[in-house]
Amino acid sequence: MGKVYLVGAGPGAPDLLTLRAARLLESADIVLHDALVHPDTLALAKNARKMDVGKRYGKVSTEQRFIIRALIEAARTHELVVRLKGGDPMLFGRAQEEIDALHAAGIEVEVVPGITAALAAAATLKISLTRRGVARTVAFLTPRVGRDETASEWLPAAIEADSVVLYMAAGASQSIASDLIRAGKPGSTPVALVESATLAAEKRHFTTLAQLEREPLPRAEGPVLMCVGEVFRDAEAVESILRNPDVSIA
Amino acid sequence: MGKVYLVGAGPGAPDLLTLRAARLLESADIVLHDALVHPDTLALAKNARKMDVGKRYGKVSTEQRFIIRALIEAARTHELVVRLKGGDPMLFGRAQEEIDALHAAGIEVEVVPGITAALAAAATLKISLTRRGVARTVAFLTPRVGRDETASEWLPAAIEADSVVLYMAAGASQSIASDLIRAGKPGSTPVALVESATLAAEKRHFTTLAQLEREPLPRAEGPVLMCVGEVFRDAEAVESILRNPDVSIA
Repeated sequence: MGKVYLVGAGPGAPDLLTLRAARLLESADIVLHDALVHPDTLALAKNARKMDVGKRYGKVSTEQRFIIRALIEAARTHELVVRLKGGDPMLFGRAQEEIDALHAAGIEVEVVPGITAALAAAATLKISLTRRGVARTVAFLTPRVGRDETASEWLPAAIEADSVVLYMAAGASQSIASDLIRAGKPGSTPVALVESATLAAEKRHFTTLAQLEREPLPRAEGPVLMCVGEVFRDAEAVESILRNPDVSIA
Repeated sequence: MGKVYLVGAGPGAPDLLTLRAARLLESADIVLHDALVHPDTLALAKNARKMDVGKRYGKVSTEQRFIIRALIEAARTHELVVRLKGGDPMLFGRAQEEIDALHAAGIEVEVVPGITAALAAAATLKISLTRRGVARTVAFLTPRVGRDETASEWLPAAIEADSVVLYMAAGASQSIASDLIRAGKPGSTPVALVESATLAAEKRHFTTLAQLEREPLPRAEGPVLMCVGEVFRDAEAVESILRNPDVSIA
């Protein structure tokens, strides 16, 4: 019986993988990976069979059952199994379903954390999510998990936290802004949208809740993080420092 | 004029550093680091001068001014400056004060994210912070930042989020439990305390808010994360699977 490692692949850039994850990939016998993992990250698994088990929107529950069956089968036929998940495995990754099913099948599981996209976005924006006197509570959430879930389930935490990062916000940013304003966040609250954080295709966009409610954004091509809170007020100013031709950016 | 990299050292275990951070340490000319960074992580910076700028409780503001002066001075005299911070730089690290001061001095800054302790704790507990139908919002916060701050500033976010991880909770867990119960969290809410996450000295303790309010914990020797929420209900059961001698743990 093999052992399964649930490994975080980080936010996108291959060098934001941990040393432990890289070492595990190098000795893996099989890698079951999400759709968005960078090819250079997968290339580290030189001797492994690779299996793309990425979920496609609309077929989530069927495919989750398929992933679990594939994981158990992999552990029965391989010694070192890596289940490679985008970002960190323990945030928005449905990891518990995989861990519980593996434990129930008597298979040993270990989890290797990864850099979650929200912290990669904060790094790229050069904005700390906490700041003395401004923000001491941070919330991560996703506005869309299942079709039967409503805004009432995530809004209270988003209202009360000082800095909020919403995952999987692409396409929904206008309605999220509108939900937040109606629930009491000031329309003037700064918003930074980061698309494809840490990749060459990364895009950053700065706005406010009120502006975002009025003007929908162009369709995103990669995953979008929506960062909301007072700490992001300076993000555009920092951006303009970065764009200043007198300052060289490596 | 040198460039300053604010780099996350991760939660403790040296192999939970990112590949990018390791590469930067290897070519750093000077490293200004927090007190709790692992010696093996610092050893990667073979050619660098090392400076411990770790803050000691009670002298925070003085030392923050000292750190900023030391960073600016380092960038004036060295090409590649690494400011190595425990966990992730953008959470509870006072990074903004350092970034803003460096920008004001015309010094280029780049941020390299790190594994934050809460995600390392979730990995070690094998408990996903989000779970379908149970938890879709996650809050990270610290109950103690300055002496003039009160529970009212962090309680509402802690009450509304499904999964809460409190940083720097050592010594205060009893009063935190009591604050949470009085603000409306059920006394039966599961709590997992993780001390020195990912290090050999790691300790895990499972309780509930009500039990924690009644029975103070023994004094911790390392940093403690207090994980609160329904997702942690199974943590102790998972722990007992881990302790089962029939299951071999590497």
